[in-house]
Amino acid sequence: MSFDVLQDKILEKNNPTVAGLDARIEYVPQHIRQAAYAQYGVGIKGAVEAIWQFNVGLIDALCDIVPAVKPQAAYYENLGWQGMEMLERTIAYAKSKGLFVIADIKRGDIGSTATAYAEGWLSGAPIEGQVFKSFDADCVTLNGYMGSDSIKPFLKAAQGEDKCAFVLVKTSNPGSGELQDVKTADGRAIYEVMGQLNESIAAGTEGKYGFTMAGAVTGATYPQQIQQLRALLPHTFFLVPGYGAQGGTAADVKFAFNDKGHGAIVNSSRGIMCAWQKTGKDGLDFAEAARNAAIAMRDDLLS
Amino acid sequence: MSFDVLQDKILEKNNPTVAGLDARIEYVPQHIRQAAYAQYGVGIKGAVEAIWQFNVGLIDALCDIVPAVKPQAAYYENLGWQGMEMLERTIAYAKSKGLFVIADIKRGDIGSTATAYAEGWLSGAPIEGQVFKSFDADCVTLNGYMGSDSIKPFLKAAQGEDKCAFVLVKTSNPGSGELQDVKTADGRAIYEVMGQLNESIAAGTEGKYGFTMAGAVTGATYPQQIQQLRALLPHTFFLVPGYGAQGGTAADVKFAFNDKGHGAIVNSSRGIMCAWQKTGKDGLDFAEAARNAAIAMRDDLLS
Repeated sequence: MSFDVLQDKILEKNNPTVAGLDARIEYVPQHIRQAAYAQYGVGIKGAVEAIWQFNVGLIDALCDIVPAVKPQAAYYENLGWQGMEMLERTIAYAKSKGLFVIADIKRGDIGSTATAYAEGWLSGAPIEGQVFKSFDADCVTLNGYMGSDSIKPFLKAAQGEDKCAFVLVKTSNPGSGELQDVKTADGRAIYEVMGQLNESIAAGTEGKYGFTMAGAVTGATYPQQIQQLRALLPHTFFLVPGYGAQGGTAADVKFAFNDKGHGAIVNSSRGIMCAWQKTGKDGLDFAEAARNAAIAMRDDLLS
Repeated sequence: MSFDVLQDKILEKNNPTVAGLDARIEYVPQHIRQAAYAQYGVGIKGAVEAIWQFNVGLIDALCDIVPAVKPQAAYYENLGWQGMEMLERTIAYAKSKGLFVIADIKRGDIGSTATAYAEGWLSGAPIEGQVFKSFDADCVTLNGYMGSDSIKPFLKAAQGEDKCAFVLVKTSNPGSGELQDVKTADGRAIYEVMGQLNESIAAGTEGKYGFTMAGAVTGATYPQQIQQLRALLPHTFFLVPGYGAQGGTAADVKFAFNDKGHGAIVNSSRGIMCAWQKTGKDGLDFAEAARNAAIAMRDDLLS
């Protein structure tokens, strides 16, 4: 069961942090951008090369500190198919360095279509009886608005592969409450309905740490709700975005862990990737700055 | 305002049909597959070429019958970045034939990330002060579970471009009710909450036909809910999947149109793409079969 793999890696590195790889060209230091543009021109090809070099530097600097990385698909799709090609390379490179890769795709669709996504991102596409892998992440994020049809195909694809998924439950953004906090006739909030539906869909897939294959996304910006959800969903592993740039603190995210200190991983994207913007060295130290920020975050979370 | 463009095209062709381009390799006739495998081998590259040839044939056969096509991103992501490259080509080719292209991506994320998606799919990515387009669809589908943050960036990207978006409200799949039908404390179903939130977010963007830039997905398999939503959301254009293979009929979808006969487009994917499977000619007639199916669907919807 795949959250075992992630929990093992967290314990091994003594660090429940996932580093976001949110490939905005503005986050890449000038010297890397200029070298890439000199080779490929100012445009999509140049931006893709610059971000690739940045990602490789970040992965090299972080791979012995953090257990996992989370590339956000939007920043790769932003650059069209060439961005997606670089995303495939980034996932493969991170895995080659021993990192657990959570592809932040937030997909969700009807059963047949969810199967096609699950094959592309996790188990590989069947073509004339053979299976061909492409994105090949360890884990994905999902949106369950369409119900269990949109989640189950991912669990099926993940099952034979020791992979897993996180379903959006209570997200970190300011507008998350507009739908997720709506109260139902039986007194629950929609995020509770979603969390309980999700835990029930994956019931029976618990691994050695007691978590099912279907985790939940619970934003650090809503610590009360994390606390409530931790009690409500004892078998659900949490992915916690919103620490750092979005405002969540170590005190906020502590509620995401169970009494054994298991069951959650906290994301930081800009706080690590863009740490070079605060050292006054024009990004020449981007890798060292990211590494130092990741170490500081680890120590903050463990304190 | 972009639903004006789509409504104009529907009236021009006298056909409220969008043809799905759901690129499963199993849907491609053997003679096309064999030619592609002979050139590129059995694998992702061969499958991508086969589906491309199939898509071109379908677009050529349908472009004077239907006003729009809807490629489902999942079937392209299924084949990794090479599938996405072919999706870019497919969108560009369909547009060159005068078709309105709805990229069925069902994306949804926090504001900054939604902006990255919106740039990739609609308005283009800004790189060093220039804008570079990639997928460049006319319209996308979105998932609003995360609230208005996840919808507004698409409306902003769409605004300068005469483009638009459809947000999932009541979907066609069997499990759609698990979340969407949950009753709130004030007696509404969640799909009503989502539909009303969506109409309010886009208020003020109504075009000459009275529809905002943010349409809604309402499945043909739930005709009662379509009827209810048509009354509840007078300014919302509907995308109606679920006709044909999923069980929806012309009688079911008639409720999606307003009293002027405007405000909805009905999708058929397998019913058109796979029409060749029912003619006994091994797919040699796939283009003619698709065209005949699209004409039959048009006549069914208009009858």
